Amino acid sequence: MIITLVQMNSVIGDFRGNAKRMVELAKKAREGTTRGADAGCRVPTLVVFPELSLCGYPPMDLLDQNAFVAGNLAALRYLQKELPPELSVAVGYVDRNRTGSGRALVNAMSVIAGGKLVFTQDKTLLPTYDVFDEARYFEPARTRKVFTPPEARIGFAICEDFWWEAPPEPSFKYPVDPVKDLLDAGIDILIVPSASPFVAGKLQTRLSLARSTALEGQIPVLYCNAVGANDSLVFDGRSFAVNCHGEAVATCGWGESFLTIDTETMESDILDLAESEPAPDARARAPGCISKEEEIHQALIVGIRDYMRKSGFSKACLGLSGGIDSAIVAVLAAEAIGPENISCIAMPSRFSSDGSLDDAVDLCRRNHIMLERLSIEGPFTSYLNLLEKPFAGKAYDSTEENLQARIRGTLLMAWSNKFNALLLTTGNKSELAAGYCTLYGDMCGALAPIGDLFKTEVYALAKHLNKLAEAEGRMAPIPQPIIDKAPSAELRFNQTDQDTLPPYDLLDAVLREYIEENRCLEEIVALGYDRIVVEKILSMTARAEYKRRQAAPAIKVSKRAFGIGRRLPLARAIHEITADKS
Amino acid sequence: MIITLVQMNSVIGDFRGNAKRMVELAKKAREGTTRGADAGCRVPTLVVFPELSLCGYPPMDLLDQNAFVAGNLAALRYLQKELPPELSVAVGYVDRNRTGSGRALVNAMSVIAGGKLVFTQDKTLLPTYDVFDEARYFEPARTRKVFTPPEARIGFAICEDFWWEAPPEPSFKYPVDPVKDLLDAGIDILIVPSASPFVAGKLQTRLSLARSTALEGQIPVLYCNAVGANDSLVFDGRSFAVNCHGEAVATCGWGESFLTIDTETMESDILDLAESEPAPDARARAPGCISKEEEIHQALIVGIRDYMRKSGFSKACLGLSGGIDSAIVAVLAAEAIGPENISCIAMPSRFSSDGSLDDAVDLCRRNHIMLERLSIEGPFTSYLNLLEKPFAGKAYDSTEENLQARIRGTLLMAWSNKFNALLLTTGNKSELAAGYCTLYGDMCGALAPIGDLFKTEVYALAKHLNKLAEAEGRMAPIPQPIIDKAPSAELRFNQTDQDTLPPYDLLDAVLREYIEENRCLEEIVALGYDRIVVEKILSMTARAEYKRRQAAPAIKVSKRAFGIGRRLPLARAIHEITADKS
Repeated sequence: MIITLVQMNSVIGDFRGNAKRMVELAKKAREGTTRGADAGCRVPTLVVFPELSLCGYPPMDLLDQNAFVAGNLAALRYLQKELPPELSVAVGYVDRNRTGSGRALVNAMSVIAGGKLVFTQDKTLLPTYDVFDEARYFEPARTRKVFTPPEARIGFAICEDFWWEAPPEPSFKYPVDPVKDLLDAGIDILIVPSASPFVAGKLQTRLSLARSTALEGQIPVLYCNAVGANDSLVFDGRSFAVNCHGEAVATCGWGESFLTIDTETMESDILDLAESEPAPDARARAPGCISKEEEIHQALIVGIRDYMRKSGFSKACLGLSGGIDSAIVAVLAAEAIGPENISCIAMPSRFSSDGSLDDAVDLCRRNHIMLERLSIEGPFTSYLNLLEKPFAGKAYDSTEENLQARIRGTLLMAWSNKFNALLLTTGNKSELAAGYCTLYGDMCGALAPIGDLFKTEVYALAKHLNKLAEAEGRMAPIPQPIIDKAPSAELRFNQTDQDTLPPYDLLDAVLREYIEENRCLEEIVALGYDRIVVEKILSMTARAEYKRRQAAPAIKVSKRAFGIGRRLPLARAIHEITADKS
Repeated sequence: MIITLVQMNSVIGDFRGNAKRMVELAKKAREGTTRGADAGCRVPTLVVFPELSLCGYPPMDLLDQNAFVAGNLAALRYLQKELPPELSVAVGYVDRNRTGSGRALVNAMSVIAGGKLVFTQDKTLLPTYDVFDEARYFEPARTRKVFTPPEARIGFAICEDFWWEAPPEPSFKYPVDPVKDLLDAGIDILIVPSASPFVAGKLQTRLSLARSTALEGQIPVLYCNAVGANDSLVFDGRSFAVNCHGEAVATCGWGESFLTIDTETMESDILDLAESEPAPDARARAPGCISKEEEIHQALIVGIRDYMRKSGFSKACLGLSGGIDSAIVAVLAAEAIGPENISCIAMPSRFSSDGSLDDAVDLCRRNHIMLERLSIEGPFTSYLNLLEKPFAGKAYDSTEENLQARIRGTLLMAWSNKFNALLLTTGNKSELAAGYCTLYGDMCGALAPIGDLFKTEVYALAKHLNKLAEAEGRMAPIPQPIIDKAPSAELRFNQTDQDTLPPYDLLDAVLREYIEENRCLEEIVALGYDRIVVEKILSMTARAEYKRRQAAPAIKVSKRAFGIGRRLPLARAIHEITADKS
C-alpha cells in the first residue's frame, strides 16, 4: 500500500485556509513523487494529515466557542466535497461528542473517501500536563477501531495515544494502552498523526517508541507530525517511517513535506514543499547527525518566523546591549526573516562601556543589520529631576537601575509602534528564573526567542552558530569579544551579573534540577550542591513568579519552559525552602 | 449531632502556618459557641475545614513538586498529633494516589480522630474548565463512602462533587453524580467542604443546589467554603446550613468564622473570628439582602487585602487620572488596607484638563489619601527630542499616545520600587477587551482590582459606594463630576473614549455575550445588535489577546474573567468574524 504523510503548517482558526491548503496538497500528492534516482513514481491511495490539522493546534479555549467548532466542521464538509474522490485522506479535526455524557467535544480523525467519512477514530489519551490541556475540552475515545481498506488493516494512534510507554512523569500511568489494543485487534500498519511540539532530544524518544511498537507488532510505523510554530510551541515535523524491524527508513525535515512510502517494500520518497525557501529546512539533516545546538537553532528560526507571519508582522526590532543575549537574538531574527527586516537599537547610558557599543556595531556590520543609536541620558536625567523631590534622602538603588531598563523598553515600544515592527525581547531562562530582569523594561516584547535557554545554553548556541558559519565559509556572525566578556547589565558602574547571581554554570545546573526535573531543596543538595546557594536560587526563582506571569511567550525548547506549561500561584508561601522545616 | 464548619483562610504552601491555625481553631471550636441570646453552649463533636485547606487552593503546578505534596503530608501528621483527640476533624489535603494507575495525586479529605485518619473520601468530579485544572493533577475517586460515627451517617461531597446538576456548560454532563451515590447509600447529613471562588450571584446557585439535595434526601446540607483570596480568585466563604425542608437556617459572612449547628434541632450559631476587623466582614448581610454591587464590593476588598498580605506588602500606589476607574480603585484600596497606606500619583500632561486634576485632588481629600503630582512633560519632551530624528516625517499617532502612558507606568513603577508599594493597575474589563489600554503603560501593576468589571459595572459600583456612604452618614467617596464626565484617556486634545469605542452600554452588552456567554457573531447579531458594530468589537477583542497575555491578574467577579480562566492562542486567524464566510 502506498501512503503519503503530509506534514503541514496549519494556522489556528483559519479553517478555510487550512482546508484549501489540504485540498491543494492532496491533489499534489496524488500526482505522485518522483524524486530520488532510485524511486519510481509512487501514487498514494492514502494521504495522512497531522492531528487537528483542520483547525490548528493547540486551539486552547477557542474550543469553548461554538463558532470555532462549527467553522471547523464546515471546513470538514468542504473537504468532503473538494478532495479528490479516488483518494483516501485522513484528517484531524474537532468533533462534537455525540455520546450524551462527559465533555462536549472529541479530538477526532476521519478518513474521507469518495466524499464520505469512511472511518473515524477519536483520541483516547488526552495529555493534560505541561503545555497540554486536552482533558479541559475533550472526552476520550472508549474504543480503538481498525481501518480496513482492501489493501491492509490500519490502526491510527493519535499523538499521545502512542505515548503510553513514556508518560510525562514516572509516577503517572495511563489506564489504557491504545497501541496495545490495536495490536491485539490485528493491524498491518500503525499510523500516528501528531501535533507534537519540539523539545530538544524528543525525536529520539519518538523513534524509540516507534521502534518498540514496530518490533512488538512486526509492522511498519508511520509517524506524521505537524510543522510550524504557534506562540511558544514549535512543531518540528520530522515525520518518519520505521520498518517492521524497527529501523527508521525515512525522516523528513522541519518544513512542509511529503513522505511517501510503499508499505510492502518500505521504499520511500521525501518531497520538501518549500525547496525554494532558505534555511533551516535546506539544512535539515538525518536525525542522528544533528547536535542539540543545531536542533535548538532550527527550532528558534521556525519559532520566530512563524510567530511573525501568523501575527502579521514582516519587521522586527530589538535592543542591542553589546551582550550575548541580544546579539544571538539579532542573529537568529536576521536568519529567520532577513536582516533587511530587523532594526537594532543600541541605547547607551552613563554606565555603558565603550566596548559594548563597539561590539554592537561589529555585530550589525557582520550580519548586515541596521543599527540605531539612542542615548537614554536625556530621558534618564529628566526622570531623575522629576523624582528628585519625592525621592529626597533615598539612596540610589534598584529603582534607578530599573528606570534605565524601562526607558529602553519605552523607546523600543515607541519604535515598534511607529514602524509596525514586532519587538523581540532578549531575556534568557536563567534571568527569568532568578528575576534578574526588569518587568516593563528589558522584559518588553511580543516574543522571547531565547526565553527557554539557560545562559550556558545561550553561549553554547553562540559558539555553534560561529562554527556553523566557519564550516560554511561565512564570517562568524557573533564577534568573539561578545562571547568572551563577563556578562553585565550595565545599570551601575562596573556591575557584573555575578555581583548578584551565582556563577552561571552553577545557577543553570541548579535551575535545571529545580525547574525541569522538579527536584526539591533536599534532593538538589543531595546531588552535591551547597545548601546556601541552592536555597538562594530556589527562593529567588519562586519570588520572581510575578514577573514571569507578565512575560512574553518564550519559544519552548526544554521539557519545562516558563509560560503556559508552568502555572504557579503568585501570592503564596515559598514552601521550597521552608517545607522541610515544618 | 453538633458540627462546626470552620471557614478558614489558608495560605498556599504554608503548611506549617495552616496546620497551626487549624489546631488553634479546632481548640477554639471545642470551647463551644455561646453567641446569640437564644443559644446555649454548643460543643461540636465534628469540626469541618474547607477543601484542600491544609495546602491552600489552588496550588496549581506546585503539585508537580514532590516537596509540596510531602510538606502537606507532614502537616497532616502534625495535625494527627496536635489536634484535640476527642474531636473528629475533617481536613482537606493532597494525597498520593495509591492505586497504581492514573494521575499521581488525589484531592483528599480525611476525618482525624484520636490521632488517626478514621475516614477518607477523595474527590470524584474534578473541575477542569475556566480557572480550574484539577484533571491536570488528580485521579478521581472511584467510590463514594459514608462516614459512620455513632451519631449519624454522614456523606461528604467535596466542592464540585456537589455540582452534578449545574455543569459548567449545558452541553457537558459528568458521568457520575456523587451526591446521588451518597443518597442511595443512605446518609443523614451531607457536608460539602469547598474552595469555591466568588462569582457574582453564585451563592444563589449554591443555595439552590443545597435546597434540591436537602429536599430529595430529606436531610440537612452543610456547606463549608474557604475564605480569603489567592491571586485572582476570591473565596467568599458564606458557608451555610440548609435544613431538610430546603430552608437556609444560617449563612456566614466573608471572613474567618465558625458555623455551629445542631443537626437534630437545626439551631445554629455563627462566630465571626475577626470581629475586631473593619468592613467588609462587619457589613456582611443575609445573602438575600445583598445587591450585586455590594457582593462585588466585598469581593474586591477581600481580593485586594489578601493579595497584598499574602505577597508581603503593606503599602500600595496607583496613578490617579481624574477618571472613574482610578478613582474607584483608590477608594477600594483605601478601604482594604487603610488610606494611610495608599499613595496616589497624578501625572498630568499637556493634554490633561484642569478638571481632571481638581477631581483627583477632591477624591484624595474625601478619602484621606496622599496625592503626589508629577508632570510628565519633562520626560515626554525628552523622549520626543530623542526620537525626532528617527521619526522624522512620521505623523503623531498612537505611538506618542502610548509613550505618555508608558512614562506614567515608568514613574509608578519607580514609586513602587522606591517605597516598596504594590502598584495597582486601574484598567477595566471593557478596555482590556477592546485593547483600549497601553501594554507597559497603564497596564503596569501587580493586581487589577477592577479588571473583571465592565465600564458600566464600574459606574454602577461607584454609585453604589456613594449611596452606601450616604446611608451611613459619610461623605460620598467619589466626587460627582468623576461620575458625570465623559470618559477620556487624555492622550491627545479633546479625546474621548467614544472616538475609538462604541458607547459603553453597547460595547459591554456585546462583550458580555461574546466573553461570558461564548456567543458568536451570528448569535449576537440575532439578539438585535448591529452586525458592523459586533464585528468591530469581536475583532478588536480577538486582536488584543497579546496585551492580555501580559496583563496583571484581575480579581474575578464574573463567570468568565480574562486571565488564567480564559486561555487563547495569540498567533491565529480571527475566526470570530471570518468563520461564517468559509
